[in-house]
Formats: sequence, C-alpha cells, structure tokens
Amino acid sequence: MVGAGFGGLEVVRGLKRADVDTVLVDRHNYHLFTPLLYQVASSLLDPSEIARPARTMLRRIANVDVRVGSVTRVDLDTQQVQTENGPLEYDYLVLASGSINNFFGNDQLSQAAFGLKDLGQALALRNQVLWQFERASWSGDPQERRRLLTFVIVGGGPTGVEYAGALSELVALVLRKDFPYLDMAEVRVVLVELTDGLLAGFAPRLSKAAVRTLRRKGIELMLGVAAKDYTGGVLRLSNGQDLAVDTIVWTAGVRAAPLDPGLGALSVRQDRLRVQPTLQLDGHPQVFVVGDLAGMVQDGQPLPMMIPAAQQEGRHVAKNIKRLIRQEPLLPFRYRDPGMMATIGRNSGVAQVGPFRFSGFIGWVIWLGFHLLKVVSFRNRLVILIAWAVDYLFYDRPVRLITGPSPPPGRGL
Amino acid sequence: MVGAGFGGLEVVRGLKRADVDTVLVDRHNYHLFTPLLYQVASSLLDPSEIARPARTMLRRIANVDVRVGSVTRVDLDTQQVQTENGPLEYDYLVLASGSINNFFGNDQLSQAAFGLKDLGQALALRNQVLWQFERASWSGDPQERRRLLTFVIVGGGPTGVEYAGALSELVALVLRKDFPYLDMAEVRVVLVELTDGLLAGFAPRLSKAAVRTLRRKGIELMLGVAAKDYTGGVLRLSNGQDLAVDTIVWTAGVRAAPLDPGLGALSVRQDRLRVQPTLQLDGHPQVFVVGDLAGMVQDGQPLPMMIPAAQQEGRHVAKNIKRLIRQEPLLPFRYRDPGMMATIGRNSGVAQVGPFRFSGFIGWVIWLGFHLLKVVSFRNRLVILIAWAVDYLFYDRPVRLITGPSPPPGRGL
Repeated sequence: MVGAGFGGLEVVRGLKRADVDTVLVDRHNYHLFTPLLYQVASSLLDPSEIARPARTMLRRIANVDVRVGSVTRVDLDTQQVQTENGPLEYDYLVLASGSINNFFGNDQLSQAAFGLKDLGQALALRNQVLWQFERASWSGDPQERRRLLTFVIVGGGPTGVEYAGALSELVALVLRKDFPYLDMAEVRVVLVELTDGLLAGFAPRLSKAAVRTLRRKGIELMLGVAAKDYTGGVLRLSNGQDLAVDTIVWTAGVRAAPLDPGLGALSVRQDRLRVQPTLQLDGHPQVFVVGDLAGMVQDGQPLPMMIPAAQQEGRHVAKNIKRLIRQEPLLPFRYRDPGMMATIGRNSGVAQVGPFRFSGFIGWVIWLGFHLLKVVSFRNRLVILIAWAVDYLFYDRPVRLITGPSPPPGRGL
Repeated sequence: MVGAGFGGLEVVRGLKRADVDTVLVDRHNYHLFTPLLYQVASSLLDPSEIARPARTMLRRIANVDVRVGSVTRVDLDTQQVQTENGPLEYDYLVLASGSINNFFGNDQLSQAAFGLKDLGQALALRNQVLWQFERASWSGDPQERRRLLTFVIVGGGPTGVEYAGALSELVALVLRKDFPYLDMAEVRVVLVELTDGLLAGFAPRLSKAAVRTLRRKGIELMLGVAAKDYTGGVLRLSNGQDLAVDTIVWTAGVRAAPLDPGLGALSVRQDRLRVQPTLQLDGHPQVFVVGDLAGMVQDGQPLPMMIPAAQQEGRHVAKNIKRLIRQEPLLPFRYRDPGMMATIGRNSGVAQVGPFRFSGFIGWVIWLGFHLLKVVSFRNRLVILIAWAVDYLFYDRPVRLITGPSPPPGRGL
C-alpha cells in the first residue's frame, strides 16, 4: 500500500478485518487534509491542525504496519517495492501516490513558482508572502515596492480561487494593521486563468458568483489569459502584458506523482496509470491503482482528481482485494459525484450538491460546517474553530511567523 | 533597538509615551516565549503557540517601527547599525540580541549537536527524534536500533531537565502506542551534567527532587561527567565511557550573541559586553545593553542569563533613556531575584519564590499556572491549554509531524 492520502487510508480501513498484513508506506509520517492547505499558506492555520500522524490515525487497526520512506522503484516482476530505507515484498500492491504540480514542461515557471500541493510548499509560500512585506518596509523605491507586493496566482480552479480570496483578506484585514507605514494600495493580487471563467466544473451561476466576489475583493482577474514564461523577474502573459513580480503561485494543473519511471509505459493522460474497470493495473491483476494516480475513465471521461473519487476508489479496491483472496470475480468501479464546494473568503462560498446550488453566505456556512466535520480529529476541530473565530471576529491571524530560512538573496531584495 | 526578546520589548514599551521614534530590528518577525521551547521540541506545542509576530504585539504603540533583518555591523563612531537590508541611524542605541549556544570551542559537538535556543533548533530536534523512531522501525539490527534510539542530553540546567522529562514521556506514553512493533526498552535517554547535581542555583532540596523524578522516569543520569568529543558517531565521556549515539542535545551553556566582531574588544565573560551600573556600554554613553548581552555585575556576581533580568534591565533602560533626554542623571540598575521554577514532566515540578520552596505536584501546578498566564496572547493561552489537556488526559501529543526535509543520509541510516 503506497500513499497515506485519502485513497490509501480507505484501503487500509477497508482491509481492517481481512486476513491480510498491510504495510502502508508514505514519504511523510502524516496524512494531510489538503482542502485547508491554502489556509496554512495564508497564515490562518498551523501545519499540525490539518495534518495528523498516520500512525496515530491507524493505531486501532491491528493488521497495518506504517513505514515512512520514499518509494524509489516498483518491480512488478519480482513483486517488490524499493524504498530509500529498504525493500518491501508484496502479494497484492495498491498504488495511491497522488499528484504533483504540472507545469506542462515550463522549466522557468516550475523553478520559480510556488506550489500549493503539500505542507512544505504551503509553508514556503507563507514565508515568502510575509517576507515580501518585510522587504517592502525597507524599500524607499516605489517601483521596487510594487514588484515586491505583486502576487500572481496562475489557475482559477478551487485552489487558486480560495487562495486568492484568503490572500487578499490577509492583506486588507490583517497585514494592513501590521504595516502602518506601508500603503496597501501598492499591493496587487492578480489571478490568471486560461479559460473564460473561474471554477470550471461548477454550475455557471456559481462560477459567475466567484468572479463577482473576487472582483469585489480587489483581485485583478485576467480570464482567457495564459502565463507564458518568466525570465529576469518578469512574467510574460499571452495577452502581451508583462508583470514585474517575485511571487507566482501555481495552481493551474496537476499530474499523477511518478513512482517509478518504469511505470511510464503504462500511463495515460497526466501520467495517470491505465487501469481496468476493476481498478487493476493493466496486465498486472495483483496491482491496484487508486486516486489521482488511477487513470480511470467513466462514460468516456477521465474521473476528476478529487478527494471523493480517491475515497470511493479506495473503498472499492479493499473490497476487490478481499474478493480476489476469496477467488470471487472482481466488481467494476463506478464513481458517484457527491458535489463540490469552494470558499472565497469571509461570508462567501459556493456549493453544489445534487440538484442544489448555493452561493454567498449560505454557500460559505455550508463550506465551513462540512470542512470542520471532515477535519481529522476532535482536537483539530476545536483549534481550527478557534482560529476561524479569531480571524472572523478580530480580523487577526495567529500564525504569521516566518519560520523558514530567508529565501536566497537576489530574488526579491 | 536591536532584539525583540524579553528585554527589547520592555524597552519599546517603556518608551511608548516618550518623545522618541523607536526602530526595533530583529532577525525574526516574532517574539519567542522561550520557556516553552522544549515543548515544541517534544511534539507538544506548535511554533505559533509560543511565538507571536512582533508587529502584532506592538501594534498599539504608535512610535515604534518594526523591521526584520540581521544586524551585520554596529558602527559606534558614525552611529549607524548596518543590516542585511540597509543601514539604520541612531541617536540612542539599545543592544539586546540575547544569547546562543556555547560549545566552549568544541567544533565536533557544535556541528553534530542539536540546540534548544530558537524555533529552528527546536523543530530540527523534533524532526530528528521522530525520524530516529521511523528509521528504527525499518532496522533488523538490534545494535543499530540501539544507536538510533539513544538520546543524550548534555547539561542539567532547567532546559536539559525539562527536555529530558518531556522526551521520556513522549517515548513512554505516546510513541509506545505509535510504534507497537518497537521494543521501547531499547530506548535510552541519558542526561550528562558536569557538576554533581541538577538545576544549579535552585535550593539543594529541589535539585535532589529533580534527580529523584528523572531517575523514576527511567532517565540515566550521569553526574560529574563531561562530554569530551564526538567522532564517527561515538560520544566520548570524561568517565571513560563511549556512547554510540546519533542524537545529542546541547543545553550545557550559552554565550552572548555576537552582533559585530568589532564589539569583541568590549566583552567580558561569555562574550557579554562590559557595561556601567547604568547599563550604558563602557565608553559609549548613548549605547545601552540589555539582557544576556549585558555583562552586568552585581555584588561581585554576573547576573544570570534569565528572562527576569532582561525584563528588569529593559524597563530600567527605557527610564534611563528618558532621563538622558531630559538631561537628568542616570540611575544605576539593581536586580531583584523573583525566584525560579522548572517542570519535570507530568505532575512534577520545582519552584522557589522568595523563602518558599515547592516540589512535586504543587511545584508542577505553580509552573503550569504561571506559564499559562505569561504566554503571549489569549488565543495562545487557550490553544496551549487544549494541548496540555489532551496530553494530560489522553497521553497524546498533537504535533508529531516531520515537517522538515529528511536529514542527510549517512547520519542515522
């Protein structure tokens, strides 16, 4: 079992009472509640509030052994997974390594841009934003300050929209008080999106609500625009505009996390692995694939790289492994769309569940309640509730600490 | 004003209504509540619970400008402080840069050992301890596991004692549940102290109570023993013993944090700067020194490098600067000892206040209450209380996340 994400955990839980010994390997020692990652990046939550040690989460499951280590090779012929810490043998293998940022081959951007896919990236982005304000407070040059205080978000999906809203509120409500000597009118938050609207996949009415809300927050929306390249501190856009900017946040695409280049031959779109309807890897019936890594196609469409798909697939794979052991025929997987939601800062959110569409304050309340319930432990629920309440009532965010090293000089200063 | 520690903040606050413009420079953007740092290192608290942005703390003080940057040079002749981000000019200067680890010239130990003086060090130590358990869970070699799971703390002052207690409880109460496949009898926590007792400066009765409590927790105490050198993964002790160990925690000494080698000529013991009884730097009446950096001597004894001394000196310096502006004679500083306390794990602490001595459960309750009151904000008080309650009632620590990069291979694995 490779990967302690939403899919991997469901597999382990589904095999709890089966006559198997499960070994769960992950690069990290924690499971990450990714929907709130943007709140870590915008100084609202601490890492430990959205991440929980995998060992603790699975403590009550007797037949699982958790191991931390990076997978370096998957040897399908000898049935071994190689890790940096040693090999693991398997009878059945489940691959659920998730996804990483996709820069579509743009090396300059992949080196310069900040991602929002894991804790390390979220903390790096948080530090960067706070550093830019600290640097601006030293600068007497308006043009330099303008560059320091320009933040470009590429990608208008849920992550981009949520982070843009959270960042603009961090600036307008919190940092404004921290930096009385800075003119907040010099701050620019720009959201660049390739298509003509935000939140593709949501109902058109909700996409339009997101556009209105972000505009009202002072975010510059550039729709139908692509980020082309980034050289010498200048981001070139497809509409001919050049932006002098240090801080680019990339939320414009993901691809499956590669585990082993040898598996590349089996991949379809976005490096996802080709699977049978039973979620078995093509040509390898004892190997299953779950979540973003699984190139599952339903009704001619690839399944979305989203948490509900990973969880449903994880539960299904646990069932199919038990059937395989009992030598029963495996069942094909079918995805049921549970709906989706996004928040766009205080008092504003969008949600669609079945035939229902919510936006504005009601969408926001639904979002809050749903995420608070889904968060991984009681303690976290309580602490997150406190953080949200302090933010909402006092316009204050507790974790504005620059904890990392200062970024390399030359960029920014 | 250099340094946003306990001394520096008191100076800024003391000058709040004076006719001065204060600029506060610090390497970090936060003030750190250092007495709870060992709880970050032992997976109990998150950084944001014991650190608070200096800008937020000083938001209501109109005459202070907070700047983040490292001081590279102090030019006493031209009255300038050079920082990595540019120069600052001053009429009056207060130096309060605190202290750093003192390895007494032992280069091997200074490179290999983990410190407990700032947030970065505390997080590095937390990651290291958790990594060693992860590595041990991969190892089939008992001797290797023994080395991985040996932790040596050098120094039996409050920091060493408090961390040793917290580490042994992390192992015995929390990690035991996380690693059911590991034998916790293979874990060794060793505390090495040069003198014959723990907690020098405390009443003998309290020092003895600390010894008893640590022994009861299974910590190996080596009193009257020095750490001599560390080569090839082996720590050599002055009693002839060799310990195979990856993780050495250094709490055996501090020295003043050097700001500028040019100031070295003015330093006394432990790199502290020679000051007048008014806390003015020798020969530079417009420069004041506060806290661990101030080589203040009272009744023939150097003042302790502790928070109360820094705070009292900070308040005194603010008063003296106001007198200097009004051209009144400056007052000499006199330290009043408010007592001290330390905790040694759950249900056990020592405290001495004036003629009173407390140990055991009462000492622990006094310690808890005092630190909770002193912590920097209401939100932090609440969140820390929750963390302590969860730890006390459920034997669980919320922040066992390995957030940093994996330490370099070759050490440990």
